[in-house]
Amino acid sequence: MAQQPDSLKIAVIGGGSSYTPELIEGFIKRHQELPVREIWLVDVEEGRNKLEIVGQLAKRMVEKAGVPIQIQLTLDRKKALKSADFVTTQFRVGLLEARAKDERIPLKYGVLGQETNGPGGFFKALRTIPVIMEICREMEEFCPNAWLINFTNPAGMITEAVLRYSNIKKVVGLCNVPIGMEMGAAQLMNVDHSRVRIDFAGLNHLVYGLDVYVDGVSVKEELLKKLTDKEHSITMKNIHAMGWEPEFLQALNVLPCPYHNYYYKTREMVEEEVKAASEGGTRAEVVKKLEEELFQLYQNPDLAEKPPQLEKRGGAYYSDAACRLIHSIYTDKRDIQPVNTRNNGAIAGIPSESAVEVSCMITKDGPKPLTVGELPVSVRGLVQSIKSFERMTIEAALTGDYNTALLALTINPLVGSDKTAKKILDEMLEAHRSYLPQFQ
Amino acid sequence: MAQQPDSLKIAVIGGGSSYTPELIEGFIKRHQELPVREIWLVDVEEGRNKLEIVGQLAKRMVEKAGVPIQIQLTLDRKKALKSADFVTTQFRVGLLEARAKDERIPLKYGVLGQETNGPGGFFKALRTIPVIMEICREMEEFCPNAWLINFTNPAGMITEAVLRYSNIKKVVGLCNVPIGMEMGAAQLMNVDHSRVRIDFAGLNHLVYGLDVYVDGVSVKEELLKKLTDKEHSITMKNIHAMGWEPEFLQALNVLPCPYHNYYYKTREMVEEEVKAASEGGTRAEVVKKLEEELFQLYQNPDLAEKPPQLEKRGGAYYSDAACRLIHSIYTDKRDIQPVNTRNNGAIAGIPSESAVEVSCMITKDGPKPLTVGELPVSVRGLVQSIKSFERMTIEAALTGDYNTALLALTINPLVGSDKTAKKILDEMLEAHRSYLPQFQ
Amino acid sequence: MAQQPDSLKIAVIGGGSSYTPELIEGFIKRHQELPVREIWLVDVEEGRNKLEIVGQLAKRMVEKAGVPIQIQLTLDRKKALKSADFVTTQFRVGLLEARAKDERIPLKYGVLGQETNGPGGFFKALRTIPVIMEICREMEEFCPNAWLINFTNPAGMITEAVLRYSNIKKVVGLCNVPIGMEMGAAQLMNVDHSRVRIDFAGLNHLVYGLDVYVDGVSVKEELLKKLTDKEHSITMKNIHAMGWEPEFLQALNVLPCPYHNYYYKTREMVEEEVKAASEGGTRAEVVKKLEEELFQLYQNPDLAEKPPQLEKRGGAYYSDAACRLIHSIYTDKRDIQPVNTRNNGAIAGIPSESAVEVSCMITKDGPKPLTVGELPVSVRGLVQSIKSFERMTIEAALTGDYNTALLALTINPLVGSDKTAKKILDEMLEAHRSYLPQFQ
Amino acid sequence: MAQQPDSLKIAVIGGGSSYTPELIEGFIKRHQELPVREIWLVDVEEGRNKLEIVGQLAKRMVEKAGVPIQIQLTLDRKKALKSADFVTTQFRVGLLEARAKDERIPLKYGVLGQETNGPGGFFKALRTIPVIMEICREMEEFCPNAWLINFTNPAGMITEAVLRYSNIKKVVGLCNVPIGMEMGAAQLMNVDHSRVRIDFAGLNHLVYGLDVYVDGVSVKEELLKKLTDKEHSITMKNIHAMGWEPEFLQALNVLPCPYHNYYYKTREMVEEEVKAASEGGTRAEVVKKLEEELFQLYQNPDLAEKPPQLEKRGGAYYSDAACRLIHSIYTDKRDIQPVNTRNNGAIAGIPSESAVEVSCMITKDGPKPLTVGELPVSVRGLVQSIKSFERMTIEAALTGDYNTALLALTINPLVGSDKTAKKILDEMLEAHRSYLPQFQ
Repeated sequence: MAQQPDSLKIAVIGGGSSYTPELIEGFIKRHQELPVREIWLVDVEEGRNKLEIVGQLAKRMVEKAGVPIQIQLTLDRKKALKSADFVTTQFRVGLLEARAKDERIPLKYGVLGQETNGPGGFFKALRTIPVIMEICREMEEFCPNAWLINFTNPAGMITEAVLRYSNIKKVVGLCNVPIGMEMGAAQLMNVDHSRVRIDFAGLNHLVYGLDVYVDGVSVKEELLKKLTDKEHSITMKNIHAMGWEPEFLQALNVLPCPYHNYYYKTREMVEEEVKAASEGGTRAEVVKKLEEELFQLYQNPDLAEKPPQLEKRGGAYYSDAACRLIHSIYTDKRDIQPVNTRNNGAIAGIPSESAVEVSCMITKDGPKPLTVGELPVSVRGLVQSIKSFERMTIEAALTGDYNTALLALTINPLVGSDKTAKKILDEMLEAHRSYLPQFQ
Repeated sequence: MAQQPDSLKIAVIGGGSSYTPELIEGFIKRHQELPVREIWLVDVEEGRNKLEIVGQLAKRMVEKAGVPIQIQLTLDRKKALKSADFVTTQFRVGLLEARAKDERIPLKYGVLGQETNGPGGFFKALRTIPVIMEICREMEEFCPNAWLINFTNPAGMITEAVLRYSNIKKVVGLCNVPIGMEMGAAQLMNVDHSRVRIDFAGLNHLVYGLDVYVDGVSVKEELLKKLTDKEHSITMKNIHAMGWEPEFLQALNVLPCPYHNYYYKTREMVEEEVKAASEGGTRAEVVKKLEEELFQLYQNPDLAEKPPQLEKRGGAYYSDAACRLIHSIYTDKRDIQPVNTRNNGAIAGIPSESAVEVSCMITKDGPKPLTVGELPVSVRGLVQSIKSFERMTIEAALTGDYNTALLALTINPLVGSDKTAKKILDEMLEAHRSYLPQFQ
Repeated sequence: MAQQPDSLKIAVIGGGSSYTPELIEGFIKRHQELPVREIWLVDVEEGRNKLEIVGQLAKRMVEKAGVPIQIQLTLDRKKALKSADFVTTQFRVGLLEARAKDERIPLKYGVLGQETNGPGGFFKALRTIPVIMEICREMEEFCPNAWLINFTNPAGMITEAVLRYSNIKKVVGLCNVPIGMEMGAAQLMNVDHSRVRIDFAGLNHLVYGLDVYVDGVSVKEELLKKLTDKEHSITMKNIHAMGWEPEFLQALNVLPCPYHNYYYKTREMVEEEVKAASEGGTRAEVVKKLEEELFQLYQNPDLAEKPPQLEKRGGAYYSDAACRLIHSIYTDKRDIQPVNTRNNGAIAGIPSESAVEVSCMITKDGPKPLTVGELPVSVRGLVQSIKSFERMTIEAALTGDYNTALLALTINPLVGSDKTAKKILDEMLEAHRSYLPQFQ
Repeated sequence: MAQQPDSLKIAVIGGGSSYTPELIEGFIKRHQELPVREIWLVDVEEGRNKLEIVGQLAKRMVEKAGVPIQIQLTLDRKKALKSADFVTTQFRVGLLEARAKDERIPLKYGVLGQETNGPGGFFKALRTIPVIMEICREMEEFCPNAWLINFTNPAGMITEAVLRYSNIKKVVGLCNVPIGMEMGAAQLMNVDHSRVRIDFAGLNHLVYGLDVYVDGVSVKEELLKKLTDKEHSITMKNIHAMGWEPEFLQALNVLPCPYHNYYYKTREMVEEEVKAASEGGTRAEVVKKLEEELFQLYQNPDLAEKPPQLEKRGGAYYSDAACRLIHSIYTDKRDIQPVNTRNNGAIAGIPSESAVEVSCMITKDGPKPLTVGELPVSVRGLVQSIKSFERMTIEAALTGDYNTALLALTINPLVGSDKTAKKILDEMLEAHRSYLPQFQ
């Protein structure tokens, strides 16, 4: 029998992120069950300054907490990966500047940018997938037994790219949307989070709650009713939830996620974002300001814990999601968590090799999906549309083929025009040129 | 062994249609191999006048041709059905007036009407499915062994409704789009139609040519190249084909049908139709004028053949498609024709019980689909989206449930907003009130 | 939200079984977490005497334990079912006499009887399925919200019959084979049972351990090696495990269950059983003697606990399996247990509606299968063979159709001859005549 | 568009076979539609003598017929393959001596040899698959555009091995069993063969007629009834058909093939073959005598046509099957023929990549299977069992892995014992040693 490591090394790629204090706090809280001894924060040259700031804060946090965790800062990724037990990714190729373009350029053509499943996510995937492939190759060499816990968006596509095209099979894609839906449901039902269970199924940022239970008894009907009340609704700080038409939601008969607004309220979302862009700025621009303020705070040498302002940033529950996942893998806990993993037949009609977001039993051997079977007829179409888009996008990202990229963008349900797709593609390939060497 | 009938009775529901002379011409041409002896044209009270006009023309046509076919006119559907061998349907509930509303009302909200897969087709389905169910119940009683050859749009949904919810299993949905694509391909490749074979797969008005052969050798690549030439393109008289972006079509790598313009050029089609609506009128309005002119011609007692003006009407090849199908069923010909039939596993990922449009071997025992297997990744999403829409629409048509109707309309990729869907739904339920008793 | 019942009523059908003290002991042990207040033991007229004996022992057991459980004895099934929370079934139509015939008659023709998947199980199914259908109809009326926990063999077929052909959807089929495999694996690996997890998949009495973990780390390779050692092997008291050819087991590369001997060692098992039949008697005959001895013991008014001799009877872990299942359902525990349930896509290639035996998360809403995906190529054939046999058997049991029965028996891999099947069928239909009214 | 070759070269591997005159006769008969100009008969050194004899006869046949076909004899396979349009295979590694061992050795252990799906076929596959792989590699080099028409048994496994593990995708496996069933059905129904159509589905030598039509009307019921009459039954010269139990056949409700006797009458077939082996000799031994007599005849310099005695050899319709297939491919005839080809979803539950025997439309682009959908429940098990066996056998043949071989043999439904399988395997690996280099 394999020996359980009794001290863990974590490598955090994109360690200079403003989210890092969340993660550090999570490990500090769990330090007794989860023997993390080293956390390596690694970033690229452009992120050196942020890495330094957030790294110093992290050091102050562990020191104050008095836990035996070492924080290491480095720009040498291989060194960070060397013998790591878990690799978490939260990097952003091109930083928030790139995201701002992902949002602004499509809007010029009346199309939503959308950071995960829309044209914005498309470009984020083109920039990110080649980098994650490189990380996988390095993991093969430096930490072949490590688990890759990917937070970087678009998390679904990145997980699928790793599963299909790399040799790293121990990969999990993680998102805070499902945990947010659980928290929201608990709040609406006025019960503690631990009593709620949701049967999750779908794709990343396109996940449905097929049923919702409190203490094992379905409360779906009640919950859907509350969701169309004016006073209630699941909200997430980084999505403006507009409220569903009650009759629509009742017929849908499953719990949508906040990102479903993009598909079931496309027209309204376009208007909303056009307005936002001309007033307070796009989401990236808002976040950029928030980040600058956060890094101001992080620099304060008296600060030795996660500042409350971080919550506005949108990463609520990220730390919880990550730490409970790592904890369950490490301890073979066999509890149920929603993650992005290989479908393997869990959702009918989606290839076994594809990534899906689904409730899984978490074991030391990884996530084991609960069987979903057939999705409701009414949602199959959208799920398959996005999966088609995701797969063509991954192919474009890996091959750098212009035609495939144009096809991927055209079939995205937010675009729907080969002509418009071509305009967006041409302008954005130019705008992101330095991050897309495969298209040169 | 069952005895072959040596004289055939055809019942034509919606016999007063302007298309009828096409059909009559087809039976006259084939009268030697196909012993049609009686053609019963049946229509409803509102269509009495048209039935009379077109019926007299039909009589003059068979008389002139000197073939032993009897034309019968009636408003009594049961009499027409009694002992029929084939029942063809080409009726239109609510006539062209209803179609005009199907097109105009959605456009007010910036949404395409689209007579088959869009909101227009949605309302056409709501009006038509209850009627086809009634016809099926009468067929059970009056001609249980007859084949139902359905031309009425939306042909895919109607075929699926019959397959799933009636006791009539001998049903085929027929459309002239695939035969038009074959003709177009033959023209572009400059060969006779008989030398062309296309592997068709998809849904009605959403069918793809997965490969195209001349004399059994694939010419797909060449054909797709020609399709993006300025000089070439498959055109159909009732669709304005706008020309595909060459790189898009190359990556798509299958032959789209003209109706794909609605999904891959949504923005351009909306503009186009808004313009048309304000200038020459919507398609229904244009067709209405054409029809009036046609009926003027039909009244001419000297006319005893199909007038050439009928071609502009858009039903090119309808007669050919219908007569070759009936002929192959009657003679157990075992040739290959594209029709709407029970999937039975032909296209992976679509339920066995659902209707698909696919190349089939035509036998006396009905169409036997050639195996398609997996559709290309890039088109699966759209096909599944429309199938989800179709199934929810059928459910709404049969139950008259408002919420299901709203859901069906919202998930249609041309709509994409529950709010807009609700506006369209409410206005159209009112506009079509008298044809939608199930929603009262 | 539904109210949790705070006192539970259990109805035990076949309450006069020698196994009952096991079950009583289980409820006594768990009485603090599981508020069982009434246990109704119900049996048929022929079992009245045994019911009386075992019932009195049960009463002495709860009294001695000082727990607030009431034991009720009745021959009126409806009274027992009335408002029950859980219905467990452990009845045997025709008693052990019928089983003896199930074993002896096929052996005359050189064919294994085999109480579950062989001709013996076939006849047991014919006798039992009509009775379980009757129970289901009564449950609909008297305890529509109860869970049916079925132990009666053939448990897989009975579960599938209930799932497909009754209105009772809250049904779980339970078997002690998987738990026995876990115990055996724990013993072989020399670790506590709680540290072992097996990924179970297959059918009842034909279940495989696809992987075996200790503390979440696969030990399959090591375990399979040990299994072919002369000193080791998973044994169960009611199966003579003959030891696998080492090379066979290594190539099989999954953990077989004891009943796999019947299919992978058919020849040896036939010889063995022929010998047993002529010497110590068939299994039924041996068990009959054991039972008689047990009931002797049970009558002792000083006995107030489960006697150790019961273990020889073969039902080891039955009580554990049953009580932990009921406990997890009642408390929505969400732990993993292997049970027979609706496949719903968990195992690829088996219909969604069919019963499979598979690791499930147990919730208050019932078992939720973990996704299995494709079974290994080498075992698909046998699993599908038995599933074909099971489905045809269920059809024969419900219709009483002779031809279907003959087909079911012929395609059983232990039979393999329509001629021999006919001889066995004719002789056994006669022998079991009074229990097979549907075949009259 | 690709140019149609107007003169064809055929390479016949195993050209020294006694079947060759059949093939030559077929090409002579069709020489007007099918411009075969060169037939290269190629064989191995051990077959030199037979090649010479049969080759001279072939030359006399074409000369007498006065057709412009050149017959070439060679031991150099590459020369034969060079620029061939069709490659047909009818070779037998180890000659009939090997087949005799395939039959005799298993019988010693009470197990049927069975030349295709049993242990005999297993060893034939082990000997043949490496050779066919070699041929494929040579085809890639010398005739990459040729079609491989494989007659060599086990035809199903060889087709699957080529499809999965070679680069030759233009392969069809051909068998005379389905055409024999059609002929038999025509005879029983007393109609001309051209009026019969059977929906074939299954595996090679395990194919079912799911329905049978005369002039497009199902006659299945009538036919099955006739098949259980004492006077009727589909017979094939190389199978002793024993007659089915009428009730079994009625419940089966599909047309079995002669080889189904091995699975539905295993016991009787074993007895029969044991008797045959001790009396007239096994089938191989009988055939060997027939062959010797045939070669005696072939040597007669006055013989210039296929002698009638060839029919007893068992290859009835082989020539017809082969020539009509080649003809339909060459002319893109689009008619329906039963062949072994890539499943691609035609039969539900069998992998797309696997070979199945199924009715196909034959085009210049190869066979296109008609959709089968789900097989009847009652036959799924056997079909899957044999497919599992086939796939494990192919794996064993390619890897030479002893354990995999033992597993393949054990799971064969005719074996059913790991112990017996080991004995057979060990003895046969030794007996066929010189033809199984991969197992050294």
